[in-house]
Amino acid sequence: MSKASLIIIGDEILSGRTEDKNLVYLAKWLGKLGINLSEVRVVLDEEEEIIEAVNALRKKYDYVFTTGGIGPTHDDITTESVAKAFGVETRIDDDALEKMREFLAGKELTEPLLKMLRIPEGGELIYSPATKAPGYKIENVFVMAGIPKIMQGMLEGMYDYLERGDILHSKSFDIMVGESFFAEELTKIQDTYPTVSVGSYPFSRDGVYGATIVLRSVKESDLDSCESAVKKLISNF
Amino acid sequence: MSKASLIIIGDEILSGRTEDKNLVYLAKWLGKLGINLSEVRVVLDEEEEIIEAVNALRKKYDYVFTTGGIGPTHDDITTESVAKAFGVETRIDDDALEKMREFLAGKELTEPLLKMLRIPEGGELIYSPATKAPGYKIENVFVMAGIPKIMQGMLEGMYDYLERGDILHSKSFDIMVGESFFAEELTKIQDTYPTVSVGSYPFSRDGVYGATIVLRSVKESDLDSCESAVKKLISNF
Repeated sequence: MSKASLIIIGDEILSGRTEDKNLVYLAKWLGKLGINLSEVRVVLDEEEEIIEAVNALRKKYDYVFTTGGIGPTHDDITTESVAKAFGVETRIDDDALEKMREFLAGKELTEPLLKMLRIPEGGELIYSPATKAPGYKIENVFVMAGIPKIMQGMLEGMYDYLERGDILHSKSFDIMVGESFFAEELTKIQDTYPTVSVGSYPFSRDGVYGATIVLRSVKESDLDSCESAVKKLISNF
Repeated sequence: MSKASLIIIGDEILSGRTEDKNLVYLAKWLGKLGINLSEVRVVLDEEEEIIEAVNALRKKYDYVFTTGGIGPTHDDITTESVAKAFGVETRIDDDALEKMREFLAGKELTEPLLKMLRIPEGGELIYSPATKAPGYKIENVFVMAGIPKIMQGMLEGMYDYLERGDILHSKSFDIMVGESFFAEELTKIQDTYPTVSVGSYPFSRDGVYGATIVLRSVKESDLDSCESAVKKLISNF
């Protein structure tokens, strides 16, 4: 499977003021393409932090997505930082400039608007049928806005640039007993089905402890066999 | 201000199956102590990934918090991984063992229960009035459960171990116009008030674009002056 990572850029996420919604959306969207979201970093609006994250993750993963920091205000520094991570300058995209002029229909093209047309040298704007605002890519780094609806539109445009992998199928089952009661049996199931990833995610609902057992595999037949074993385990409680 | 980071450990977050709730809670809780959450990483339940994140962040920040992966099942590998990050073995904590024996009152102390009593050598269990389940710390790394209610209880126990910093005061104001219309004026305000961090966070509500302007400073008087300037800016639209 291909592996992807996400860099969420923004002080407002780290202060707890804004709850990120893009991680879950991207994870599920990529999952349907057989691409595994494998790491996420949330960083401040600070150049050095963005550069470090971009350079660490673009070498480690097939794809890096970023959200946030591409607006027109002084605290939007994603594009400048991504350019520096690649050691290139930024440039105003001619095609974007033309589209903006059409859109403005004679109104003033201000500095803040010009700033939003800048992308790193070597980058490529990615238009989408779903939104007027384009994202862009440079090598394996895909840059998107932070506002969920705009991010989702930009992501649709990136579909054709991504190689699909084997779909990871999954099934999940709730067991209404604390994990310590079934941990040993579950380990045996994991050992018996090495092509299936067996996860146990505990929860407490109204003071009752339980867990969701999640099985994941690219092989559906192995998943089915493993499912039988898990159902047998659950029936013991 | 002191700086903290958070490592969210768990495949279920990265698959999009479970939405993390601990980032926002921790960010706000630390903010009240004058500690700045400055970076978050979400990593898979893989030893190498956890070790890398722990070792990178414990050197970079005053405090590192981790959530998830301390239960009794085979996919709970946080404690083993944290121990390896510090180059130490794990041990069963005597005090925790005694408490568990009392709790079990003669019932069998199974392997999965024993596993949960293990912490890295040099680590210290942290009990909390809010919960029976203790978290633990080793040097500047604080290890907590992933279930939000349990995590929140463990965090209360950690209060006394953290040095308070200057409280970052903040004020926020909505402006109902696209960012490009006020970006230049806002830059001037930021330049005039260097002790205030001026952020602009765009949103779209029912198709109308606007932004929340957030001012943050440890100096309340500077915040007040800056507030006047921002209110004047907003009144222009």
